[in-house]
Amino acid sequence: MRAVDIIRKKRNGQELSREEIEFVVRGATHDTVPDYQLAAFLMATLLRGMAPREVAALTEAMLRSGEVLDFSDLPGKKVDKHSTGGVGDKTSLILAPIVAAAGLKVPMISGRGLGHSGGTLDKLEAIPGFNVNLSLREFRAVLEKCGCGLIGQTPEIAPADKKLYALRDVTATVESPALICGSIMSKKLAEGIDALVLDVKTGNGAFMKSEEDAEHLAQLLVDTGTRMGKKVVALITNMDQPLGRKVGNALEIEECIEVLCGGGPADLRDLSIELSAWMLLLGERVSTIEEGRELAGVMISTGSALGKFREIIRLQGGDAGVIDDTAKLPQARHQAIVKAQSSGFLAGVECEQVGVASMILGGGRERKEDSIDPAVGLIVEKRIGDPVRAGETLATIRYNLDEKLAPATALLERTFHIAASSPAPPALIHKILSAAV
Amino acid sequence: MRAVDIIRKKRNGQELSREEIEFVVRGATHDTVPDYQLAAFLMATLLRGMAPREVAALTEAMLRSGEVLDFSDLPGKKVDKHSTGGVGDKTSLILAPIVAAAGLKVPMISGRGLGHSGGTLDKLEAIPGFNVNLSLREFRAVLEKCGCGLIGQTPEIAPADKKLYALRDVTATVESPALICGSIMSKKLAEGIDALVLDVKTGNGAFMKSEEDAEHLAQLLVDTGTRMGKKVVALITNMDQPLGRKVGNALEIEECIEVLCGGGPADLRDLSIELSAWMLLLGERVSTIEEGRELAGVMISTGSALGKFREIIRLQGGDAGVIDDTAKLPQARHQAIVKAQSSGFLAGVECEQVGVASMILGGGRERKEDSIDPAVGLIVEKRIGDPVRAGETLATIRYNLDEKLAPATALLERTFHIAASSPAPPALIHKILSAAV
Repeated sequence: MRAVDIIRKKRNGQELSREEIEFVVRGATHDTVPDYQLAAFLMATLLRGMAPREVAALTEAMLRSGEVLDFSDLPGKKVDKHSTGGVGDKTSLILAPIVAAAGLKVPMISGRGLGHSGGTLDKLEAIPGFNVNLSLREFRAVLEKCGCGLIGQTPEIAPADKKLYALRDVTATVESPALICGSIMSKKLAEGIDALVLDVKTGNGAFMKSEEDAEHLAQLLVDTGTRMGKKVVALITNMDQPLGRKVGNALEIEECIEVLCGGGPADLRDLSIELSAWMLLLGERVSTIEEGRELAGVMISTGSALGKFREIIRLQGGDAGVIDDTAKLPQARHQAIVKAQSSGFLAGVECEQVGVASMILGGGRERKEDSIDPAVGLIVEKRIGDPVRAGETLATIRYNLDEKLAPATALLERTFHIAASSPAPPALIHKILSAAV
Repeated sequence: MRAVDIIRKKRNGQELSREEIEFVVRGATHDTVPDYQLAAFLMATLLRGMAPREVAALTEAMLRSGEVLDFSDLPGKKVDKHSTGGVGDKTSLILAPIVAAAGLKVPMISGRGLGHSGGTLDKLEAIPGFNVNLSLREFRAVLEKCGCGLIGQTPEIAPADKKLYALRDVTATVESPALICGSIMSKKLAEGIDALVLDVKTGNGAFMKSEEDAEHLAQLLVDTGTRMGKKVVALITNMDQPLGRKVGNALEIEECIEVLCGGGPADLRDLSIELSAWMLLLGERVSTIEEGRELAGVMISTGSALGKFREIIRLQGGDAGVIDDTAKLPQARHQAIVKAQSSGFLAGVECEQVGVASMILGGGRERKEDSIDPAVGLIVEKRIGDPVRAGETLATIRYNLDEKLAPATALLERTFHIAASSPAPPALIHKILSAAV
């Protein structure tokens, strides 16, 4: 078998065999196919697409390129959630404690933020001492003790994805649904889970701006996971405005604690309950989604979920004192206000720009190698459909470096659109997809 | 400017600016853009295509990546011919002496054969002692002395093409008309020529199997050359059967000498005269194509062209004695016959397979690094439309290694199609294209 023939076949839009896909993935893992051939393959795949059968073969080959964790000796179903990413999207840190408190296992391997989108690992690291770089042995020990562990990708997990993702990033081949699916699902299925709930974001703050693209990706993810013997469901959820009010790493931890204490913004609370309910249903802890919602609510109202979060933080080396006193989280030195220029209703938010503003302040990364400032970010005070008076606060900026304020403010001032009439607030959950296979 | 943004733009089907194309070509030349980004760019270009303006910018950037020869101090127009390649396509070695004998300069930089298609340099090297690896200084000296020189690509000529071609070969991106045009025209225009005649082959032995693809490429080549201030014309010519009777390096030199002596197969003679006539017309040596044909004929009938070939061989270190005694060319030790299995008419030839048979015998390369045997090849005895009797010879195989005979014979036996009725022989010249710009 020769790489050039496989590239040509995909270039011509033909369907590749399982063996051909395995050849390429093995080549990526062991450096036996040079980067330039992988790059041509990735571009041909992006432009020609892949049939569902090919995507499943790709995902499986990427999964098998590394270690697949096995927690079958631990009691309880193993479930996880994956979000395609957005602005203020912090549900992982709420639902992991909820679902673990309810008795399921949540072995969660997450990523870092890039561009306008935040990452679970960066948020966790805003908690003083929290260690996301556990070895697989330590990860298992934490999972065994408290039912949930939260770590970053280790070298043992899907090394083919590590290689291919780095290449995709520099060859403009990130956006292929087939490649996205292979990347997400190979890592998630390596967690040794029984079920997975997908939160596929759509809207101007998501990677998939159009509903159609989001649904296509969601269906591909669900079908691929299902073909591989997992229970998978996808929620298409709105990202036309930030989720919750707070954007920025320590600020988002703060807001998660608010929700786990029974408060917090309604949208964040509702989506966390909904995703938890699906995890509980797929993990066979409950038998209807309504029962799942109730159980998730109970886990919050009884303080069980908050206690679980405390336990996770402690087991991963963090200062659990932040739960009782969020002032122990990193605090920005300064704050500034973005005010409404006119009166009316908040008609729209350029959601991606809110994420970019947080990145400019230092809360995110423009390039992978950038370091981040956990303390900075912003608090959005208005939601789409809210009445707004001229001079009222639209957002509060928390910053450390003076020179970052002006560009972030300038961006945010263009980000909120005020109109004379009130639009309907966007629905939080657009659609729920299960397997078509 | 970042390579990834240029790749993304082309991936999205947008037109690149001159500066963006120059950035990529400079990156290829100086290794400042890594191979994997070049590979992704090549695949995006193949699948998305390029507008004529982009192709012109690409060609010019590739041309300027190296030295552009300047023979303007030598008297007479400088003209050349380029063929897209086929089976038995040996016209360069006939028309170069004809046109040089008529007083124009022919600075010909050629390539080697690959796959089913032969290469001018390999054919020349069948002449004992012939040196195609002249320095540019030696090339100029030969051109000055006898009006024609025949060499391979030097490191100074279009280094960007050298880099990109090597990558295209291993990333299944050879077939892009834009990339083919950049590759051909950057090298040909680096010769410092005033005019170029293109022989774009079409048919089952050509790279462009369909007439439509061949015409598209031809028009692109002509328009690109014309935009760059050159006189260019393209002939779309038939490659549904080998050109002439002989296929293989020494055998083809033999057949060229036959034509230069006033004999040889009609199709090879006619096409050589026709291409010479266009070179003479574009080089302003004659003022009508009919006059060009006459002058080319006179160059043959008076022996001037043969004398010129002798001179070229001698100046480039070869044994010119081969002209008087072709037995001095490398001779294969054995021969075998492929016979007709039935009677009727030769209805078709799988022309590419004839080239592959010659390659199998050792006359061509499967991979670039393969060495070739100049002596081997085959002589095709029938042309499309010829009556055939069962048992009659269709082709004579000349071979050296016994183990090569069976696979070559097996291939050739499937290659000639005999039918009950006589098809019309294919027209040799399908169309002549001049610039549309």
